[in-house]
Amino acid sequence: MKHHNDTIAAICTPAGVGALGLIRVSGRDALTLVGGFFSKSLAQAKGYSLHYGQLLRPDSSVLDEVVVSVFRAPRSFTREEVVEISCHGSPYILREAMGLLLQAGCRLADAGEFTRRAYLNGAMDLAQAEAVADLIASSSEANHALAMQQLRGGVSRELEHLRGQLLNFVSLIELELDFAEEDVEFADRSALSNLIASIATETEQLIASFRYGNAVRQGVPTAIVGKPNVGKSTLLNALLNENRAIVSDIPGTTRDVIEDRLVIGGMEFRLMDTAGIRQTTDLIEAEGVGRSRALAQTAALVLYVFDAATETPAEAAAQVAALELPATATVLLIGNKADLGQQVPHFGDLQGIAISAKEKTNLGALRAAMTAAVEALAEHPADRATITNVRHLHALRRAHEGLIAVQSGLRDRLSGDLLSIDLRTAIHHIGSITGEISNEEVLGNIFGKFCIGK
Amino acid sequence: MKHHNDTIAAICTPAGVGALGLIRVSGRDALTLVGGFFSKSLAQAKGYSLHYGQLLRPDSSVLDEVVVSVFRAPRSFTREEVVEISCHGSPYILREAMGLLLQAGCRLADAGEFTRRAYLNGAMDLAQAEAVADLIASSSEANHALAMQQLRGGVSRELEHLRGQLLNFVSLIELELDFAEEDVEFADRSALSNLIASIATETEQLIASFRYGNAVRQGVPTAIVGKPNVGKSTLLNALLNENRAIVSDIPGTTRDVIEDRLVIGGMEFRLMDTAGIRQTTDLIEAEGVGRSRALAQTAALVLYVFDAATETPAEAAAQVAALELPATATVLLIGNKADLGQQVPHFGDLQGIAISAKEKTNLGALRAAMTAAVEALAEHPADRATITNVRHLHALRRAHEGLIAVQSGLRDRLSGDLLSIDLRTAIHHIGSITGEISNEEVLGNIFGKFCIGK
Repeated sequence: MKHHNDTIAAICTPAGVGALGLIRVSGRDALTLVGGFFSKSLAQAKGYSLHYGQLLRPDSSVLDEVVVSVFRAPRSFTREEVVEISCHGSPYILREAMGLLLQAGCRLADAGEFTRRAYLNGAMDLAQAEAVADLIASSSEANHALAMQQLRGGVSRELEHLRGQLLNFVSLIELELDFAEEDVEFADRSALSNLIASIATETEQLIASFRYGNAVRQGVPTAIVGKPNVGKSTLLNALLNENRAIVSDIPGTTRDVIEDRLVIGGMEFRLMDTAGIRQTTDLIEAEGVGRSRALAQTAALVLYVFDAATETPAEAAAQVAALELPATATVLLIGNKADLGQQVPHFGDLQGIAISAKEKTNLGALRAAMTAAVEALAEHPADRATITNVRHLHALRRAHEGLIAVQSGLRDRLSGDLLSIDLRTAIHHIGSITGEISNEEVLGNIFGKFCIGK
Repeated sequence: MKHHNDTIAAICTPAGVGALGLIRVSGRDALTLVGGFFSKSLAQAKGYSLHYGQLLRPDSSVLDEVVVSVFRAPRSFTREEVVEISCHGSPYILREAMGLLLQAGCRLADAGEFTRRAYLNGAMDLAQAEAVADLIASSSEANHALAMQQLRGGVSRELEHLRGQLLNFVSLIELELDFAEEDVEFADRSALSNLIASIATETEQLIASFRYGNAVRQGVPTAIVGKPNVGKSTLLNALLNENRAIVSDIPGTTRDVIEDRLVIGGMEFRLMDTAGIRQTTDLIEAEGVGRSRALAQTAALVLYVFDAATETPAEAAAQVAALELPATATVLLIGNKADLGQQVPHFGDLQGIAISAKEKTNLGALRAAMTAAVEALAEHPADRATITNVRHLHALRRAHEGLIAVQSGLRDRLSGDLLSIDLRTAIHHIGSITGEISNEEVLGNIFGKFCIGK
């Protein structure tokens, strides 16, 4: 484990040439170390002040004319002394400036180390720190909103509320233990049972919110499924073409991936075109069909395309039923090659839409249905927190197991000390999300995925 | 021509995901416009102050938690009111924040418009403004040093000195014109002639410095030339391999170009491998050989490689002579496949070096000779300014033509009014470099090559 009281530095702007490049320095000696090669002393600099001057090499030559931002502990991102250097955006200058900092005694920051320090110094809890990375990676209105909610403590407050109730509960139980010989019950068992049931329900709601949260954060996995030649690829192209400008705005993703991602109504969809599904004796085609089925099984949204000119919606609905998709998947029944004005009725849970992918008719209705389908995934109340992080999901599930054990313990009239063990398990797992409880390995996993400079 | 009193905004960090992203806003209403969707009022903010707060959307949702830098006119880069917004480095957030700014009434800045305003508002002259772009593009110690010299006014001061002398000169001449009827000569013609000669020499030195300046700024064009199979490509690979780490640090250049660029001793070389030179009846090979010769003609540095095991340095020197290279090219005579301890003597101007590209022996000596050869291009005194910009070169050449005309006019005892025209021409062209004289077209050319946000 690295020292947490040394002074760290890193470039925090994206690689490449730009008008400006930023270096962030954090730690006890940030002001003295930067002051050592800055043309002005920073020792007396006030917090939230800017300073224009030169970065000087050991031979007194000017590396760059820069503006330096000073944040004094604890009023900074990391709660440490922080200096940010705004250089001309030349990779050469940024490298050289980093060289000066390392020579002066700074250490190159690890990935996520600034945010890690912010967490360790109590500026934010662990769920908020994780939201920093999500916020930076945000690519649509919807996943930005979830990251911002988490960053601003929305998730943490709900968890604190749960944990507070449980701590209250366990203290009642443990109080009884102190008076065990007197065989008293401070808490009415049926009242306790109701309380645990309500906490378990809240936990379930949070767990359920992950389906929506994860789809939004990662992009909604959307499979385009149907028989061969019903126009699946035409539909993919039609949807992508109309959004290409937005799609190509997403940087850092490879071309392959870009082609299949699009943002509709502020929501990102991962569109997956699949092989046409039919009975076949061709081994290779059968493999493709198998993969299509598997993809449809894991997708959150299935666009089932059929040829409205040759098949009826009822036939298509029967084909969907034959796919035996999980109950969690939302299916849209899309009648392609439809005439103008042709309708596709709804079949039970299946919403029907008539389109022409080739003529691009009625695609607006399809897009609206796609966003509505994802919003419907969010079964929990709109003002409640949404879980987007798989680490949080696992912790909540384990907490929930603890709560179920407590419920059955209460039914079986287990003694308080046994109940207390399961309660403490639940409390532990909820606390691990916000980092009340954490360890080096967990922190390493979380912050190792951050970018350098954050 | 755009308005120069509206408020402009642009993202100034490189594209892509990073820890931080910066937006710069400049113009009369910068503080009010940003203050309109920032959680704190900036109207009373002092210059060189930082402000932590939130960017708020029209529906009051939080777009981002940011730090805002305030620079009050005229103490800012553009000398206008300037606000910089430091966001989380998500392209989505930066786009949305730009959207808020444009909605608030900012205009998207043109390429280089911030620097253009800095020039128009007198914060820097035109040569310094051009140096800003060079500084951002700088990729080696040497081209960084030249850009920094120019940014800090080194070039401008020399030109001001020249222009001052010429203005002084022309005022003497034009004073005589006022007294033309009295037929007086305020200035001793031979003293004037000496003065013009010395100014012309200074101008020539600046013109000569371009050869070095341009090579350093663009990378030294270096041709690897020789007969087939003497080991040219092996030499290229040997030089590149040992420097690959540095080379791959240069971002934004394509892989093709990276492979042929390397930095030695702080100087960037553009290495060009060429086809082997020999007499051939094969038309396609002849074309390749022709290109090799042409490349050697335009290179600042020619690495002439010969096989030291089969040919003598004298034979190689004769081959170089046959290439009829321009006198301005520096040639290094490289005996490849040399035994340990084998020497290649110098032949007149040709420096000889014995190496083994395959065994990577004596490459250090070759690299030292390469940097020394480039430094030798800088014939002018080290404390004098170096011209790196082709626009400056052309202006100096035209100024020099004017000076030559004045010299011959003095010899021919031309009248003062005729001398004055040529002097004014020279003054005009020197003034055009620092932008004492400029026009919209020139400014458009210069700043159009800048990146957005600078």
